[in-house]
Amino acid sequence: MPRLEVCLSPALLHLYDTNDSVVVIIDVFRATSTIAAALYNGAKSVVPVATVEECIELGRSTENSITAGERNGRVVEGLEYGNSPSEYSRDFVAGKTLVLTTTNGTRLLHMVKGASAIITGSFLNLSAVCDFLVKSNKNVLLGCAAWKDRYNLEDSLFAGAVVSKIADKFNINCDSAIACKTLHNNLQGEAPIEFLRGSSHYRRLSAYGLESDMEYCATVDKHPVVPYLHNGKLMNYDSIK
Amino acid sequence: MPRLEVCLSPALLHLYDTNDSVVVIIDVFRATSTIAAALYNGAKSVVPVATVEECIELGRSTENSITAGERNGRVVEGLEYGNSPSEYSRDFVAGKTLVLTTTNGTRLLHMVKGASAIITGSFLNLSAVCDFLVKSNKNVLLGCAAWKDRYNLEDSLFAGAVVSKIADKFNINCDSAIACKTLHNNLQGEAPIEFLRGSSHYRRLSAYGLESDMEYCATVDKHPVVPYLHNGKLMNYDSIK
Repeated sequence: MPRLEVCLSPALLHLYDTNDSVVVIIDVFRATSTIAAALYNGAKSVVPVATVEECIELGRSTENSITAGERNGRVVEGLEYGNSPSEYSRDFVAGKTLVLTTTNGTRLLHMVKGASAIITGSFLNLSAVCDFLVKSNKNVLLGCAAWKDRYNLEDSLFAGAVVSKIADKFNINCDSAIACKTLHNNLQGEAPIEFLRGSSHYRRLSAYGLESDMEYCATVDKHPVVPYLHNGKLMNYDSIK
Repeated sequence: MPRLEVCLSPALLHLYDTNDSVVVIIDVFRATSTIAAALYNGAKSVVPVATVEECIELGRSTENSITAGERNGRVVEGLEYGNSPSEYSRDFVAGKTLVLTTTNGTRLLHMVKGASAIITGSFLNLSAVCDFLVKSNKNVLLGCAAWKDRYNLEDSLFAGAVVSKIADKFNINCDSAIACKTLHNNLQGEAPIEFLRGSSHYRRLSAYGLESDMEYCATVDKHPVVPYLHNGKLMNYDSIK
């Protein structure tokens, strides 16, 4: 059986061999949730970029595009939209290219080398991600974007949800994976958001009134889609396979 | 209230401010368990060193000393004893200086800068460590030695045991601390070793027949002592305060 491992922070990524593996980038609050929403609702692609400058630049040169990104809970000056999955309804986003600047998630995505596939995961597309991983039948690394390299609860809880669902199809000899699974089992059927209200990120974003946004991000399987990195763009896997 | 944080790997230590804090070095399997056993049983001090060469050298130049260290579950050639807490009975170790070479724990200990105190923790001295932390009334960082920088279950489970015991005396806004506490709560009264049998380190050391050693390391409060770093040596805090 292929192996399944969890990397809890980008600062630990060098400890894992990602060659020929499927890597899942996880940034639950809120980049990979927004990506799932946008692609599920028909965005042509989502281009993750690290800086606001790149975002503006690429937005200008890309037809039918939207620029988006937040810092400290507000839309960045010079960009058009925020990093909230609920903004990206089908009416609004279908057929468009979303150029999205995020910090933690984008950085991790660009750090991964040699992977056979890079996809993104969030509670919104939990089962779709799990199905993809099982079908791929390759080694898997679940990569938590964390918060400025610090471990965070929301990404590891999601990693635990994945491990719980597909543990019987993989060889798991990774303490991080076991810990994440234990964290998820500990929910005992409670909604993820209940546990996540105690997380540092929830407290940080609550100060900007983003509680309902985080509740959205913690909703399971609302947007069944596999965001798949293809030529530097995240696309709905169904549209390219 | 002072803050309490958990660092899950030496590779994340740079993210934490240890100035004027109490840092607890945690290397449950087995360095900080052996240290607790030796000091509780009357060893004069334990000197943690990184390499076998240093260990031999320091053993030669130190009166009434013992050199100890293992690699891959065996006593290293040139040293006298192993890294098993059960070896260090009072009859054997009282009054002696134990020069101990370990990899993960020693490395972390030497990385910590600016702390007001550095102590070591293990299940064997859980309550003694907690009492010390509460009395100190300073910011605390629980530092997991991990395994070659990889997150491990035994160190984080112990960190969780500490957080569970003293959470009401500290300000906890650290997702690692919450995760460790959840891991510990998940035991629901079961002995730590039951959970730890699933850890990668348990499997690794079991291959060397060290099951009973790990059971020893997971025993709570068998050796109530605070190993305190004083001039490069770990000493029983009661003997120097």
